[in-house]
Amino acid sequence: MSTLKLYVDRMSQPSRAIIIFCKVNGIEFEEVRIDLAKGQHRLSQFKDINPMGKVPAIAYGRFRLSESHAILSYLACANPTVPDHWYPTDLSMRARINSVLDWHHNNLRRGAASYVLNSTLAPVLGLSLNPKEAARSEKVLTMSLSKIESFWLDGKGKFLVGSFQPSIADLSLVCELMQLQIVDDKDRERILGQYIKVSQWIEDVKKATNPYFDEVSAILYKVKMKLQKTKAKL
Amino acid sequence: MSTLKLYVDRMSQPSRAIIIFCKVNGIEFEEVRIDLAKGQHRLSQFKDINPMGKVPAIAYGRFRLSESHAILSYLACANPTVPDHWYPTDLSMRARINSVLDWHHNNLRRGAASYVLNSTLAPVLGLSLNPKEAARSEKVLTMSLSKIESFWLDGKGKFLVGSFQPSIADLSLVCELMQLQIVDDKDRERILGQYIKVSQWIEDVKKATNPYFDEVSAILYKVKMKLQKTKAKL
Repeated sequence: MSTLKLYVDRMSQPSRAIIIFCKVNGIEFEEVRIDLAKGQHRLSQFKDINPMGKVPAIAYGRFRLSESHAILSYLACANPTVPDHWYPTDLSMRARINSVLDWHHNNLRRGAASYVLNSTLAPVLGLSLNPKEAARSEKVLTMSLSKIESFWLDGKGKFLVGSFQPSIADLSLVCELMQLQIVDDKDRERILGQYIKVSQWIEDVKKATNPYFDEVSAILYKVKMKLQKTKAKL
Repeated sequence: MSTLKLYVDRMSQPSRAIIIFCKVNGIEFEEVRIDLAKGQHRLSQFKDINPMGKVPAIAYGRFRLSESHAILSYLACANPTVPDHWYPTDLSMRARINSVLDWHHNNLRRGAASYVLNSTLAPVLGLSLNPKEAARSEKVLTMSLSKIESFWLDGKGKFLVGSFQPSIADLSLVCELMQLQIVDDKDRERILGQYIKVSQWIEDVKKATNPYFDEVSAILYKVKMKLQKTKAKL
């Protein structure tokens, strides 16, 4: 049997979602770290795995796959031991989960990733902070949070699209939001504070996926401490 | 039985993809036009269908769904008469098609939609042209075309991910590219001309989905003529 290889960097939100998903569901894998800060995603040996030069990507025997949502749904379907709620076989539930995942690309992900990069993370990657771009992204981010609060979480259950148990969409979106841990506490509080349902939902997804969620997200707190030390020296 | 309602504007690429898909596969539907130029997507009666205020969206009885890729995969799975090649049940083929669809959001779609808007279409929507943004989008667009040419079309068959027959990904991406019809001929030639496989693939997808593809795309030529007349008057 081939081993499932995950090409990931835990600093990448979609990478964390896939690692957590495998651990929660007892899917065996080998974690191959592709260090984004060192530019390892641009090396030719990685391009053989994913010609797009992005993490996460997976290899299973000769099969290669990139794009985190495609990977999560593939892993959910290819492993019969994964409980149905992660990616329901019911067509209309699955369609609504796909709808959140598609929406995510140009809403929450675009807002959150760009806000964190331009407000906080840029120096770690050898780039400059960009307050103007950070302000623009914050608008996309808060607009997205407001849609999650008022629409995607507006159902009977406590998870997205009214589910009573988490799906791959919950995991993907909450991993995206977790990166807000590295920004200044008062900025995070300003952005997230007003969304009561979103805050509760983040806690519910963590609870449903711990201890793995916290274990895989630990890197964010390390980076935050590093950033705070650098700031203190200035 | 409920009637499937498609809330669409044929000026929207993903709307066209869904209409063509239904026509090709003999899925009955009622087309409800949401005129984007008149701002009908922002009206409260449409927000009841899709709170995100975007087309396309569908309603089938009490079921509501937005996001074109989620809609296409739902329609392919919910209608047993749709041939398997549109959204294969084979897990690894389906995963690779999902991977193209996920990639599309922040690559071809972002580049093409923004390029057409900022170089040509803005006045139709009461906005201003933005040559700087058009130039930036053209880079995303050509980078995306180059990935389609060298990677997504690098297989045995003539369709994406090496398929011998078209999938929902072919339809989604080619509908996106069709909007380039409304830009200046020499601009389109400059952008598309160098991609031999892409140009052949566009023809192959049209051929596989005609006469519906041309019928549903006809609106683009009307808008182009209108734009040319306005230009001639200036």
